Amino acid sequence: MDQSVGVVKTQSFEFAKAPDFLPLDSGEKLSPVTLAYETYGNLNAKKSNAILICHALSGDAHVAGKHSADDEKTGWWDMMIGPGKAFDTNRYFVICSNVIGGCKGSTGPGSIRSQTGKPYALEFPVITVRDMVRAQKTLIDSLNIEKLLTVVGGSLGGMQVLQWAVSFPERLVSLIPIATTHRLSAQGIALNEVQRQAILHDPDWNKGKYTKETLTGLSIARMIGHISYLSDEAMHHKFGRELRNKEKFGYDFSTDFEVESYLHHQGIAFTKRFDANSYLYMTKAMDYFDLAGQYGSLKEAFRQSKIKYLVISFSSDWLFPPYQSLEVVQALKINNHDVSYCEIKSAYGHDAFLVEREQLTRLIHGFLKSLESYVA
Amino acid sequence: MDQSVGVVKTQSFEFAKAPDFLPLDSGEKLSPVTLAYETYGNLNAKKSNAILICHALSGDAHVAGKHSADDEKTGWWDMMIGPGKAFDTNRYFVICSNVIGGCKGSTGPGSIRSQTGKPYALEFPVITVRDMVRAQKTLIDSLNIEKLLTVVGGSLGGMQVLQWAVSFPERLVSLIPIATTHRLSAQGIALNEVQRQAILHDPDWNKGKYTKETLTGLSIARMIGHISYLSDEAMHHKFGRELRNKEKFGYDFSTDFEVESYLHHQGIAFTKRFDANSYLYMTKAMDYFDLAGQYGSLKEAFRQSKIKYLVISFSSDWLFPPYQSLEVVQALKINNHDVSYCEIKSAYGHDAFLVEREQLTRLIHGFLKSLESYVA
Repeated sequence: MDQSVGVVKTQSFEFAKAPDFLPLDSGEKLSPVTLAYETYGNLNAKKSNAILICHALSGDAHVAGKHSADDEKTGWWDMMIGPGKAFDTNRYFVICSNVIGGCKGSTGPGSIRSQTGKPYALEFPVITVRDMVRAQKTLIDSLNIEKLLTVVGGSLGGMQVLQWAVSFPERLVSLIPIATTHRLSAQGIALNEVQRQAILHDPDWNKGKYTKETLTGLSIARMIGHISYLSDEAMHHKFGRELRNKEKFGYDFSTDFEVESYLHHQGIAFTKRFDANSYLYMTKAMDYFDLAGQYGSLKEAFRQSKIKYLVISFSSDWLFPPYQSLEVVQALKINNHDVSYCEIKSAYGHDAFLVEREQLTRLIHGFLKSLESYVA
Repeated sequence: MDQSVGVVKTQSFEFAKAPDFLPLDSGEKLSPVTLAYETYGNLNAKKSNAILICHALSGDAHVAGKHSADDEKTGWWDMMIGPGKAFDTNRYFVICSNVIGGCKGSTGPGSIRSQTGKPYALEFPVITVRDMVRAQKTLIDSLNIEKLLTVVGGSLGGMQVLQWAVSFPERLVSLIPIATTHRLSAQGIALNEVQRQAILHDPDWNKGKYTKETLTGLSIARMIGHISYLSDEAMHHKFGRELRNKEKFGYDFSTDFEVESYLHHQGIAFTKRFDANSYLYMTKAMDYFDLAGQYGSLKEAFRQSKIKYLVISFSSDWLFPPYQSLEVVQALKINNHDVSYCEIKSAYGHDAFLVEREQLTRLIHGFLKSLESYVA
């Protein structure tokens, strides 16, 4: 019954052409700006069925379907989007755009500057989650959508969701922040910083002007990231102390354990599909995210955001632990907003939002059903 | 009332001179072997008051006192050892030796081989926790101590403690394993491996034959390590989102947050006092540690180890979580051994064993008191 959205194509939206620009939190101005995006399903006549998906650190606009009939990989959240799925493309018009600062078609440090004919590299301005959302909102404007039925995303995507609540509440019916936080913790900043250090100290990185295709520093960063996306329990069940292609310890510094092999593979594969500079910018945007810091208090941040919320966390997520979602829920409740909260019991750690299809589908399906009066 | 052991000196014990050797689990033979060690207090006439301290990954033989009157730093567990302290040097004879593979006076990858006149570097054999304990036992033999009153240590030190139980139970009255495990988890191996990768990919490391005094790769490894030694809560309380010497975000990739500055400092300071190759060997020894793997089952491993145990874990330790200590306790109980267990409530994470002086002192003081009949 659950089907794919089929073969899809990434589109481009260009705006902020000189003398226009996108203002950034840093005070810098970005111009011109391209957003890569995909859409699935059809916008209804009332334009009341539009859903925006926000992606996480390593995601992109390609959230569902395939890019060609023989494409082996589907979009990163294909399990959730398609005919009959949680975000049913028979009913909803689904949009996902690559964030600015990213490396999958939107303007980022790898984009060529017309002035120099070279990539920005580290001359790209540091961007924030609010900047990302500001750019997304321009895309939604261009689609003539006055109100989004919901905005949904996990991790850095969830930060964008919360920023939507605060920046553009009048443009929203509801929100679904998943496995996220209203401010990155000290531990989160620490994990990001050591990942950045691994990139910054890779001699091939060359102060951002690297020409080598794959950077070891990025591979190490991704390995660290992967550990933080999983949980002790998930790693135990998935790998335990299984040896990799050997009967006994090697007594050297080659790969002994399956878990090492998995991390090496993940690290190296990532360097082939992601830009090391974008990684620096994405992690910095996460570090800077702090709604209470921006608006004085969390209560104050959400004061005007009178919409419906479904907040979801995962029990074994130690990168964005449930208590951080609960802080959001409490701030929403103090403001008398309409919020449902669910901590999903899962062993998959932070990655659970990419895994727990059934539980997420049930929750989201019910939540969207409660918004039917707006859609119809 | 609590005093210092005063000015102490590291001593050297040499053994396994050719044609003799220390047999290693890998099948290799180590010869000659030096163990750096310190002792405090006096061995009584019955030789019944000797306590062996085992150090963790970055520790050494210098566990208490100072190396000179104007030494600013005391030994790494000075809070626990001295007149009137938990390990009261007025009553007990305390011994601590640097492990083989280490870099603080014991034979390790930085030791000069007489055959070549050069350091072993990666030609040093990979050693195990059992090898470390085998070497320690030779030192105890040389001191003519038939039974140790207790062996105590945290983390990698705790692994040595458990290995003592299994390898030489007849030489023990009791044991105090703290914040440790009977086998390193997949998550633990993963964290060690990414730390090793940071070292192995530092071009200055030069396949172990590095000449540069401080290696960035080791600094990054230590930063990762530090994150795993703390807890989310500890980092929140210690650093939160405090900025470092600035009023607002820098919007660049310099240091923004206190927690980043702390990690940088810890990383760099560590490279000045620790050998990158030793770090590789220490972490590999931890990875290989698996008592059930060695002996078929944990129950079987401890079958002959009929001594007294005080097992201690810390509630917020996510590197060696309490459930892992509980697995040890259960295996001891199944064997009808005499075991006390305490999970200390602490926010300090794995590092709690270096911090929670009061709670540790109370527990250990009571435990040692229960052994008085043996000492007297």
